[in-house]
Amino acid sequence: MLNIAVLGYGVVGSGVVELIQQKNPVIKSRLGRGIKVKKILDIRDFPHDPNKDLITKDADEILKDESIKIVVETIGGTGFAYDITKRALKAGKSVVTSNKELVATHGPELLALAAENEVSYLFEASVGGGIPIIRPLYNCLAANDINSITGILNGTTNYILTAMNKQGKAFDDALKEAQSNGYAEADPTADVEGHDACRKIAILSSIAYNQFVDYRDIETEGITRIAPDDFHYANQLGGTIKLIGESRKVDGGIYARVHPAILDANHPLSHVDDVFNAILVEGDAVGDAMFYGKGAGKLPTASAVVADILDIMKKNRSHTANSGWDYHRKAWVLNQPATGSQLYVRMEGVQDKAALKELLAKELGQVRFYENLEKPEQLVFVTQVNEALGISQLTGRLESFGYKPAIVLQIMDKQE
Amino acid sequence: MLNIAVLGYGVVGSGVVELIQQKNPVIKSRLGRGIKVKKILDIRDFPHDPNKDLITKDADEILKDESIKIVVETIGGTGFAYDITKRALKAGKSVVTSNKELVATHGPELLALAAENEVSYLFEASVGGGIPIIRPLYNCLAANDINSITGILNGTTNYILTAMNKQGKAFDDALKEAQSNGYAEADPTADVEGHDACRKIAILSSIAYNQFVDYRDIETEGITRIAPDDFHYANQLGGTIKLIGESRKVDGGIYARVHPAILDANHPLSHVDDVFNAILVEGDAVGDAMFYGKGAGKLPTASAVVADILDIMKKNRSHTANSGWDYHRKAWVLNQPATGSQLYVRMEGVQDKAALKELLAKELGQVRFYENLEKPEQLVFVTQVNEALGISQLTGRLESFGYKPAIVLQIMDKQE
Repeated sequence: MLNIAVLGYGVVGSGVVELIQQKNPVIKSRLGRGIKVKKILDIRDFPHDPNKDLITKDADEILKDESIKIVVETIGGTGFAYDITKRALKAGKSVVTSNKELVATHGPELLALAAENEVSYLFEASVGGGIPIIRPLYNCLAANDINSITGILNGTTNYILTAMNKQGKAFDDALKEAQSNGYAEADPTADVEGHDACRKIAILSSIAYNQFVDYRDIETEGITRIAPDDFHYANQLGGTIKLIGESRKVDGGIYARVHPAILDANHPLSHVDDVFNAILVEGDAVGDAMFYGKGAGKLPTASAVVADILDIMKKNRSHTANSGWDYHRKAWVLNQPATGSQLYVRMEGVQDKAALKELLAKELGQVRFYENLEKPEQLVFVTQVNEALGISQLTGRLESFGYKPAIVLQIMDKQE
Repeated sequence: MLNIAVLGYGVVGSGVVELIQQKNPVIKSRLGRGIKVKKILDIRDFPHDPNKDLITKDADEILKDESIKIVVETIGGTGFAYDITKRALKAGKSVVTSNKELVATHGPELLALAAENEVSYLFEASVGGGIPIIRPLYNCLAANDINSITGILNGTTNYILTAMNKQGKAFDDALKEAQSNGYAEADPTADVEGHDACRKIAILSSIAYNQFVDYRDIETEGITRIAPDDFHYANQLGGTIKLIGESRKVDGGIYARVHPAILDANHPLSHVDDVFNAILVEGDAVGDAMFYGKGAGKLPTASAVVADILDIMKKNRSHTANSGWDYHRKAWVLNQPATGSQLYVRMEGVQDKAALKELLAKELGQVRFYENLEKPEQLVFVTQVNEALGISQLTGRLESFGYKPAIVLQIMDKQE
């Protein structure tokens, strides 16, 4: 019997306990020994919980118990979780976590600490919920140089964007629906502003490119400025709008960015709807590979946590996701959005459309305009592919003429 | 330096040699030692090949060389490949293969032989080319009971079906195009009759359900009877036609089948086009997870082979895909196609349509008919969902009235 402890008895933590208790007979028959949840750390009381006798408020009861070999950290955040993870690793316990914030912020330090103490620090559940992605990246695709990663990494925003696209909802209504269905939190900032997706693309990029991509270096734009009209035009252009986290190797560094974009229907990510996540990885040998599944939820996330525990049990020795991912190899992160894509622009409050159209034609060459007679002050246009024109260049030029676009979206088309 | 040998210097074998030689610096820096291809076995001569000095026609030069720890079997088939795999395992060498035919036929015996000799027999490349699927199934999803697998497992047929769907080609023309592009072999039988997909779903099912699913027990239907008209109607019904390999746990056994089906546009597999493969796995904890990528090709397949080699290097000990997958746990395979789906039926040579329509309405209740004025003897109809009606029941009933349908396809809709 392998003794473990679970730190934080919330949605994911209780899912881990439930899944382990349910699967123990199978685990025992396959691995020769089962898993026992010996302690659960939480500051709350759970008087009616079947596992209430396992719950303690005293971290030392776990850290000083030498029979506990693995702790599952499902506390979240970078405060107490950071502190107790370090103490657990130093005490010679492997740590398995779903805490993307902690991994993205202190991953290199915690991986180094794990290696030092000959234990593991694993975090498959921190990206993509139950979707196997971390392990495939550093294991199954180990014979590849990864050129790029493009992902729909946040289920909440994808649910909102799907509702806006399919039911024509406004952002606020779609957000309310997501909240009432339990897919968005009361404070949805981390999701809708793209911060959650930003941490996840930082973690994936660090592993893929074998250097530390700091999430604080990644330019991040959320979905709050997207209007139903944008979906109308995106559909007309043969696509839809998704929140994309992407990165790729470029000369001198790593390009990384989180932003909403119009995805053409031929893009493999364009059909990923609702709370599903998908991650498209381009390796030099394998070409495009995509991983798809539920990016969040109690049991999907618990499934990834338990897979990490089983992995430690099978190997019986220290192994971390990527020994090259350390502070000494901090990536130079480039934010300048890619040029060479068509750009979609919606302008509002335009008083003199004729003058603006003339200016745009002069400045940008051939531009397609879209207008709605019921919205006389709205002007939508799509640029041609222009190798010298990125979002910031375009916005800068418009601003130099006194125009501020309501939104500019890159149009992403998947060339085979 | 780890010495390996490659058996069979064809497309995949030469890809493995190329990829190893190209990636050796990275492999060395990550794993502490590189890989050396010491010998290549092939009966042919390669006088102008840069690796010509490594090529031998004598298997004993490899099998008796104790410095060779891993052999890559990319010969194919179940004759010489079977024999040499057994000899290599008995000689204490791990074997990595892309040979789906051999794995599907003799997998249990070869896995047992590997375990006996404390070496590995790994075959990630045998299904889905470069797509990581075998390892995620037995590793990343280890905390799940797998309920079902549904896959587009053959790139050749998917290329043909995509050409028929998007360009309106007839089967023969699409096949010729696939052949001239190198996506189909001169003798395309194994692909177009579904045999290749059958072996792959057998391998995946054996791992997922931890028992031996014999491919010879799986009812298999290919794509040769599909006509352009079927795509016309599939599109009208909001879907397209794909060759599906599927299996799931049912009372008393494993349901497994390979067949073309109409996939509704909301089905995650419906947008998988051209030579791409995708495998949808449903686990009880993770829900739906999908793996997508190039299912064949020199470097994608080599990428999976090299990942297996690296895995053996990292673990330094015996490990096989699944120790439960042995002859003692041979699965009872049920072929009876699922009931409870809508069925699409195309009849040709119908002399008295009115009589047939009346009969169908009486026998099947509400049925939707589709007719084409230019084809007076063709009748297409779609049944309602009927829990008592599968393809064989429907075909049986039609035949009892003297009618033989040209094709019957299940309509697959993905309910969340």
